[in-house]
Amino acid sequence: MHPDPVSEASRLTRIDDPADERLAAYRDIRERDLVGREGRFVAEGKVVLNVLFGSSAFEAESVLILESRLDGTTDIIERVPPHVPIYVAGKSVLDAVAGYHVHRGVLAIGRRGEPPDLDRFLGGLSARAVLPILIGISNHDNVGAVFRNAAAFEAEGVLLDETSCDPLYRKSIRVSVGAALKVPFVRSGDAGSILTALARHGFECLALSPRGRIASTALDCRGRTAILLGSEGHGLPETVLETLRSVRIDMSAGFDSLNVAAASAIMLHQLWRRR
Amino acid sequence: MHPDPVSEASRLTRIDDPADERLAAYRDIRERDLVGREGRFVAEGKVVLNVLFGSSAFEAESVLILESRLDGTTDIIERVPPHVPIYVAGKSVLDAVAGYHVHRGVLAIGRRGEPPDLDRFLGGLSARAVLPILIGISNHDNVGAVFRNAAAFEAEGVLLDETSCDPLYRKSIRVSVGAALKVPFVRSGDAGSILTALARHGFECLALSPRGRIASTALDCRGRTAILLGSEGHGLPETVLETLRSVRIDMSAGFDSLNVAAASAIMLHQLWRRR
Repeated sequence: MHPDPVSEASRLTRIDDPADERLAAYRDIRERDLVGREGRFVAEGKVVLNVLFGSSAFEAESVLILESRLDGTTDIIERVPPHVPIYVAGKSVLDAVAGYHVHRGVLAIGRRGEPPDLDRFLGGLSARAVLPILIGISNHDNVGAVFRNAAAFEAEGVLLDETSCDPLYRKSIRVSVGAALKVPFVRSGDAGSILTALARHGFECLALSPRGRIASTALDCRGRTAILLGSEGHGLPETVLETLRSVRIDMSAGFDSLNVAAASAIMLHQLWRRR
Repeated sequence: MHPDPVSEASRLTRIDDPADERLAAYRDIRERDLVGREGRFVAEGKVVLNVLFGSSAFEAESVLILESRLDGTTDIIERVPPHVPIYVAGKSVLDAVAGYHVHRGVLAIGRRGEPPDLDRFLGGLSARAVLPILIGISNHDNVGAVFRNAAAFEAEGVLLDETSCDPLYRKSIRVSVGAALKVPFVRSGDAGSILTALARHGFECLALSPRGRIASTALDCRGRTAILLGSEGHGLPETVLETLRSVRIDMSAGFDSLNVAAASAIMLHQLWRRR
């Protein structure tokens, strides 16, 4: 007979009742994704949890592991701070609580900090900081993908207007492979108020647009640089395009359509390798 | 009283019975997505349908429009070839047939042609052709996104091994914004047989890998060029990496993780602008 891994390891608490109050934060994850969770977020999968436990900006409240995945998560369990409870549940309990099939088998509830003040945040960046600025990007995959590119190419942060979606939505964090927990961000205001703050802090602001006046390959900006990215449907507001230098990524005249995440990858890679 | 748009326009056939046999190809779209559809595919949304009706490689069998979207689809209706029936249904009928909420409101069934022969396909490409080669890419979003980048940066085709997923899966076509119907592709064999065929046709084959020996920015290939892209989990097979020149995209040492679609955007953009 195998020894019971749960009772052997005192760090782990087995829960067999889907109604157990200790799992309240994991309840109906999918339905509650879009309505906010009172200062909390859901992190999913080993890669994301590893970023969470390496983060100084976010703390975990608890971890929930599918019993059959215990063997494969010993490295995660070792990284969980001592005061954070680790719950273990069987598949039927986990799926019943979460309200969907949790195929990654490991979840954590994280706690958001206070939203940072935009001016204080911008003031603390380096003289060569690069920031993608998302205006009206409401697709969680795209926001997650931009954060992943921002981390890969060392953007010092991401700004989002208030109509862009929350980077700490479960799916955004997952698509970002944890970068949404690593790259600092501020989400507030509209394009106008963000541009005003960026100007106050000496940023050159560039608007990425298919009809931009400067080719991305001709760019040579070495100081603080912000790249504004708009949604696929609407692009950036005309009032923004009129006031800023606009940049284009040259592409085929026959299919001039690039996803915002792909565009951010090309732009951030280019700015990164010039530094 | 408004005139009835359906009875007025003789091109349109209204269907009120979800069991109507003329809608058989639209039945249970989501469940049948993954099991193939006997030489057919499902195209979804106006952008994709516009590419379909501009394609010489694919033909539409029928079109199905949500009645409430008729006003917004007159431009689509005008492009439907005269022999292709256009069905119109109310929301409840459409959702009952398709088995999910068709929020784009316009669908078409397309017919696949015969799969092209790899040698004939490669032989017909230009002396400066660029091809992304997908090995083990089983995520439909990633395949769709690579096709979109391939179209934007004028790759002459895409090759996929047989473990990569079907570019004509509904979601791949949608994510590609129709590029999967525009950029020719061949999906067959394994990495070994694909590399042999590419060599026969004078392609320089490069393997993209985080540990690649050459930086992407140092590349200077002006002849026929193929870029092999592997899956995030497994990367390219060791046997492939050993035999090919390997290329890396330089990025942060602290977060060296780029999605395959983002990597393809950076590589294809770079190869495109050198030509």
